[in-house]
Amino acid sequence: MAAESPITPRRKDFPQWYQDVIRQGDLAEPAEVVRGCMVIKPHGYAIWEKVQADLDRRFKATGHRNAYFPLLIPMSFLAKEATHVEGFAMECAVVTHSGLRAVKDGDGHARIEVKNELEEPYVIRPTSETIIGHYFHKWIQSHRDLPMLINQWANVMRWEMRTRMFLRTSEFLWQEGHTAHATHDEALEEVRRMLDVYADFAENVMALPVIRGEKTENERFAGALRTFCIEAMMQDGKALQAGTSHDLGQNFGKAFDVKFQSKGGGLEYVWQTSWGVSTRLVGGLVMAHSDDAGLVLPPKLAPVHVAIIPIYKNDAERTRVIEAGETLRRALVDLDLSVVLDVRDDMRPGAKHFEWEQKGVPVRVELGPRDVDGNTCVYKRRDRDPKEKVTLPLAGAAPVLKALMDEIQKSLYDRAKAFREAHTVKVDAWDDFKTALKGTDGVGNFVVAHWDGTTETEKKIKEETRATIRCIPLDAADEPGVCVYSGRPSARRVIFAEAY
Amino acid sequence: MAAESPITPRRKDFPQWYQDVIRQGDLAEPAEVVRGCMVIKPHGYAIWEKVQADLDRRFKATGHRNAYFPLLIPMSFLAKEATHVEGFAMECAVVTHSGLRAVKDGDGHARIEVKNELEEPYVIRPTSETIIGHYFHKWIQSHRDLPMLINQWANVMRWEMRTRMFLRTSEFLWQEGHTAHATHDEALEEVRRMLDVYADFAENVMALPVIRGEKTENERFAGALRTFCIEAMMQDGKALQAGTSHDLGQNFGKAFDVKFQSKGGGLEYVWQTSWGVSTRLVGGLVMAHSDDAGLVLPPKLAPVHVAIIPIYKNDAERTRVIEAGETLRRALVDLDLSVVLDVRDDMRPGAKHFEWEQKGVPVRVELGPRDVDGNTCVYKRRDRDPKEKVTLPLAGAAPVLKALMDEIQKSLYDRAKAFREAHTVKVDAWDDFKTALKGTDGVGNFVVAHWDGTTETEKKIKEETRATIRCIPLDAADEPGVCVYSGRPSARRVIFAEAY
Repeated sequence: MAAESPITPRRKDFPQWYQDVIRQGDLAEPAEVVRGCMVIKPHGYAIWEKVQADLDRRFKATGHRNAYFPLLIPMSFLAKEATHVEGFAMECAVVTHSGLRAVKDGDGHARIEVKNELEEPYVIRPTSETIIGHYFHKWIQSHRDLPMLINQWANVMRWEMRTRMFLRTSEFLWQEGHTAHATHDEALEEVRRMLDVYADFAENVMALPVIRGEKTENERFAGALRTFCIEAMMQDGKALQAGTSHDLGQNFGKAFDVKFQSKGGGLEYVWQTSWGVSTRLVGGLVMAHSDDAGLVLPPKLAPVHVAIIPIYKNDAERTRVIEAGETLRRALVDLDLSVVLDVRDDMRPGAKHFEWEQKGVPVRVELGPRDVDGNTCVYKRRDRDPKEKVTLPLAGAAPVLKALMDEIQKSLYDRAKAFREAHTVKVDAWDDFKTALKGTDGVGNFVVAHWDGTTETEKKIKEETRATIRCIPLDAADEPGVCVYSGRPSARRVIFAEAY
Repeated sequence: MAAESPITPRRKDFPQWYQDVIRQGDLAEPAEVVRGCMVIKPHGYAIWEKVQADLDRRFKATGHRNAYFPLLIPMSFLAKEATHVEGFAMECAVVTHSGLRAVKDGDGHARIEVKNELEEPYVIRPTSETIIGHYFHKWIQSHRDLPMLINQWANVMRWEMRTRMFLRTSEFLWQEGHTAHATHDEALEEVRRMLDVYADFAENVMALPVIRGEKTENERFAGALRTFCIEAMMQDGKALQAGTSHDLGQNFGKAFDVKFQSKGGGLEYVWQTSWGVSTRLVGGLVMAHSDDAGLVLPPKLAPVHVAIIPIYKNDAERTRVIEAGETLRRALVDLDLSVVLDVRDDMRPGAKHFEWEQKGVPVRVELGPRDVDGNTCVYKRRDRDPKEKVTLPLAGAAPVLKALMDEIQKSLYDRAKAFREAHTVKVDAWDDFKTALKGTDGVGNFVVAHWDGTTETEKKIKEETRATIRCIPLDAADEPGVCVYSGRPSARRVIFAEAY
């Protein structure tokens, strides 16, 4: 009798599956004592470190430099850009006091209470446009100071009502790019450049196909003229906004008086952009690739590429098998793979297999005494049916396993793309819209439909179906039609979906 | 007539010199709008990134894994370890509210105020022993879960009264290692291992000679049984505590009920350690190596190793010189050096020289049309008299400049070590103590003297002289004597100094 899986099947309960995969993969856990926060455990954090390293290299290659601004922002700063404060007001955590003191209750129990009230409260940054606007004002005088291309890796805090690990937490880790330019054209070029950096990273590193598009007015970043995004499909057919890039126009320039002397000699406000991705990407990875056995990771983000599991019954076998395993491990490390030779003696090989499977290791290699005698090893690919075992000559195994990494990376991308294509539906009638959105077997669709361009219609569609306009795709063809909801004229189709 | 230097000489006003070096080196600036905080600018942050990368590699090589815990800590957690809360109570920033709302003043002006009071306030982590103790309780059940070796890179907040950039700021960036072990011996081994990691990093990467020692009871981390440290001498003869490693005993284990089933089957409390270094190291770098012309950086932490400054008077010269400069740049990059070929047309060569000098670039290369004709270039080492120019054949310049990096790294270390040795004085009489401590020409000394082992004497010495016991050096010989202050018996000498 098979033991019951610790992971709820995707098709039975997707949100529960998601939580189970994270728990069994040892990625994170809710910080039940800190409202809406999470603890990122070593295996989850190692994935984030890989995300960071790859993106950071891309940011530097496009001329950006990292800097660090204060966590706390004077409350008054937030109010300087009117739309911005409206968008973030309810999500701010506010620091009002410093110092603690011990006091005694009436019944003599010791208790801690806050001590000194601050003259002006600070908010914990929900994003840093305002404080960075303040410094851009100090740092930018002339066109020679432009473009100013800054990135910050930081924690931010948005007091959320409904949280979900990685996808929406009160505190999260992210990077926020902030740039200032002499012209609107240059700023827009930057906005699109960074969107492309995100899209390329998503597709080639995360193995996650994305749609590049523009947000509607209703879904724009608070304070932006235009917001661009990459949108990905999860395995329940819902959309995940995986990254955004904002054209801030001169809104923050005016709010923080960031002016420069132009080449012509006049004083002009700078044109700004901001763009960010966060630990949410780790949640996207989980929901895009994992299966009912647990986490599946694309090799380019896997903290461990190969787990070698030795099989032995006695010390003599153990010595031989581990020696062969160590030789293989070294050969793989020489090919720049990250490898674990799992020599734990207090665990059975089956349990080890199970653990590395749940942790998403792309390839597991089994090595027993008969394999060593026959100079072979047996491997399983994490992206394939676990019953599928392949036997390899041990001597030449390393380059074969190395080549497998590219193959697995590609197969995950292809699978995710085929899934999205199979769950993308073009519709023209309102009833079809609702049916298509809902999908079948608990898997929804991206619905490609005409929209009349009004926030009013967008909101009504959301009320009736929970679908939002994920984006107006950048590659959407001009195609006159009529709005699927209002029947009014439409210039092109947009993408509707339920979203995280 | 020479222009007045923007940097105050060290011997005239050391604190002002420090600020000037940071400003002219474009490392950071005070965040005047956020109490006691700073903005770390790109050049300063790039140094911190190099510190991080090197240390992170060392932490991983010693078996540690990174994780991330919440920024906010329930106020009640802090009170669970009595000494700990006493040590940190006054330095806590407290989050009491969420959400903002716009209100109108009596005169109709819009204003922002805080909205919802939290049920329990949170403190922004001043350090994470308490929240991590909470999770260790959840994660550790058996001796098989030990040792647990965690590190966190994070921002922390300590509301300081007197701040100084990098050295003491309300918010700072750091790493905090937190480990749990089955026995006190293993924990102590870890404490010493990480102290050695810090010392090796300081000496071999920062070019900063350090003394390894133990803190007195009075200077211990709040909640630790024993605190070990590395102490370095700055160019004013004061001490900088550059890193600490704490034996926490079972204090936090008991406070957070972190118990494990031992091999023998009983339930025991874990033995914990914690250890950390922070952005303060960047301040230490500045104060140890820089000179009256500005920042001096050891090559291993320099974001730019070589600045190539082309000299030309017309377009034809510009083309030739920049072509030669680009060839040299590529040759240096191939040797893994970070190089800037400074082609800015709106700046004179002298100004470029000056800027790279102030930014601490180890080597500047000058390349003019006559150099190119003669197949030579001229370089200046940042660690030598700026008048000292060396001419090199251009063709073979790259390997020579590469080799210079090791030489500069070593010369900075040797210089700092010679300085410390010249400013370390053994004394046995109280009057000599005071004279030695004060030193001459504004440069104090490390005073190696006998101490009777009591906090009372330590405090009196501090009151009278501002000197604290920096540490009891690990290599201090047993040497019976009498306390320089009280005349009571002493078992060995300790190091006194004024400190940052």
